Amino acid sequence: MKAYPECFACIFDQAIRVLRKSKFGNDDEKIWNSLLKVTNSVKDIPYGLTPAQLAEHFYPLLSEITGISDPYKEEKEYSNDLMLNIYDDLKNYILDSASPIVLAIKASIAGNMIDFGVPEFDPSGIESKIIQVIKEGKFGIDDSKEFLDMLNDSKKLLFIHDNCGEVVMDKLLIEIIKLFFSHIEVISVVRDGPIINDVTLNEARQIHLDDLASLITTNAKLPGLVPELMSEQLENEWEEADIIISKGQGNFEGIEDIADKRVFFLLRAKCDVIAKYLNVEKGDLVIKRGFKIN
Amino acid sequence: MKAYPECFACIFDQAIRVLRKSKFGNDDEKIWNSLLKVTNSVKDIPYGLTPAQLAEHFYPLLSEITGISDPYKEEKEYSNDLMLNIYDDLKNYILDSASPIVLAIKASIAGNMIDFGVPEFDPSGIESKIIQVIKEGKFGIDDSKEFLDMLNDSKKLLFIHDNCGEVVMDKLLIEIIKLFFSHIEVISVVRDGPIINDVTLNEARQIHLDDLASLITTNAKLPGLVPELMSEQLENEWEEADIIISKGQGNFEGIEDIADKRVFFLLRAKCDVIAKYLNVEKGDLVIKRGFKIN
Repeated sequence: MKAYPECFACIFDQAIRVLRKSKFGNDDEKIWNSLLKVTNSVKDIPYGLTPAQLAEHFYPLLSEITGISDPYKEEKEYSNDLMLNIYDDLKNYILDSASPIVLAIKASIAGNMIDFGVPEFDPSGIESKIIQVIKEGKFGIDDSKEFLDMLNDSKKLLFIHDNCGEVVMDKLLIEIIKLFFSHIEVISVVRDGPIINDVTLNEARQIHLDDLASLITTNAKLPGLVPELMSEQLENEWEEADIIISKGQGNFEGIEDIADKRVFFLLRAKCDVIAKYLNVEKGDLVIKRGFKIN
Repeated sequence: MKAYPECFACIFDQAIRVLRKSKFGNDDEKIWNSLLKVTNSVKDIPYGLTPAQLAEHFYPLLSEITGISDPYKEEKEYSNDLMLNIYDDLKNYILDSASPIVLAIKASIAGNMIDFGVPEFDPSGIESKIIQVIKEGKFGIDDSKEFLDMLNDSKKLLFIHDNCGEVVMDKLLIEIIKLFFSHIEVISVVRDGPIINDVTLNEARQIHLDDLASLITTNAKLPGLVPELMSEQLENEWEEADIIISKGQGNFEGIEDIADKRVFFLLRAKCDVIAKYLNVEKGDLVIKRGFKIN
């Protein structure tokens, strides 16, 4: 998906938040001048990039300006801890339900609410908001039946993760899937380095995701998978997978054009641009199959 | 008030909305490329301008790109008509109340809700929202008693208007003031040419504001008064006025530094930046006296 002009403006908001978190704090003149450096760096940016590629023009420069390579380090650990705190209770709740895998899908999508890249994201009380979405959230697009059918015939699941916190709910989904389909092997794909609050090998290991899945990276520090940047290892895993889960907007925006019938996009429509693009309400849960048959 | 970095990002949102309203419509590539022209024009913009001066770097260029000098022409007429429809009922309601001038002040501030420059502004059902604010809205800052005292001793009122629609409520405030203080002469100051949905001579005459006040302009096509750009005529009126009403954020941002005890700022805190600056809740009504004594 090509970034919309609205994404260009949105990422200026993100830049200001990263600058406000830095040593510049409330020094508006320094933040203003830093913003001008950013503005200069994007004044010729071509139309046609995905939002994740657009982010590539902002975040590395912001790291250079602020001297901070991982601005959301604390928030990443904090949101993983929050989700680990509700993990066991949620697992029991899901296992007591009539359709544990569908509920675990909802939990994994609800975890996608934790996103420090979204302008209006407020982390306070996020646990109860997530539990509410799991219990009451509605699917704007629901290909969960096709997902369950394909899962039934799969031996290898490629799981492309998105954010910290959310990744704990992904782990829960993997655990529930493995309870019902113990023969399924899972390969978990995380970012190659810090970008916003996306999960990297570091945070994946912190939550012991490697107990349930083999870990590899996207080969890029971008908030979304970019097919052209995939390593040979990731390309091989992509080829060999029977079923692929792509979490979040960033990955969707990057790979929906591939239109692979094995891919299921799990996301929450978090901005007007994506809601309009998918023809769903903002906030809707989405499980959408890569729509063209290979 | 100096524009904050947040204002810089906000005005990109405004630019996209103006471009979407233009002939480019949904042609994202054309809008993207237009946005790059805008980005290029502001890549060296210095820190320290007021938000209205910042707007000067965007709106004339947007007019040039789109070929439209008055992008909110229809909305301006529409919002004036909406407010004229409730004028008589509201006047009767206010005159039946215990404190007509304070209620008319609230009406004038509530009219400030009509602002096509604000990202989340939604004009649907605006009449009932405005009536609700008049009846239930609370003052975050309330210098209305000082305003009434000063009005009692005034012969000449300088009224610096802001937006269309809102200006109809300003007219109502002027009418109510004149009912109680018939000797007060009113000079109404409007923008010198089209900028966002701000009122110009054209729309002021459409609503017959000239029946109650003499009309002059700010001498600038900017969404806020800039002291350095005032004409000799406006400077003279400013000097001679016994009391000055400044409506809206744009005028506040432009002239609050003057700190004149005759000035009363009437506005609704419409964005986080202004709410924080004034230490009020977003959405609060404000009547604030120019705080230093001359």
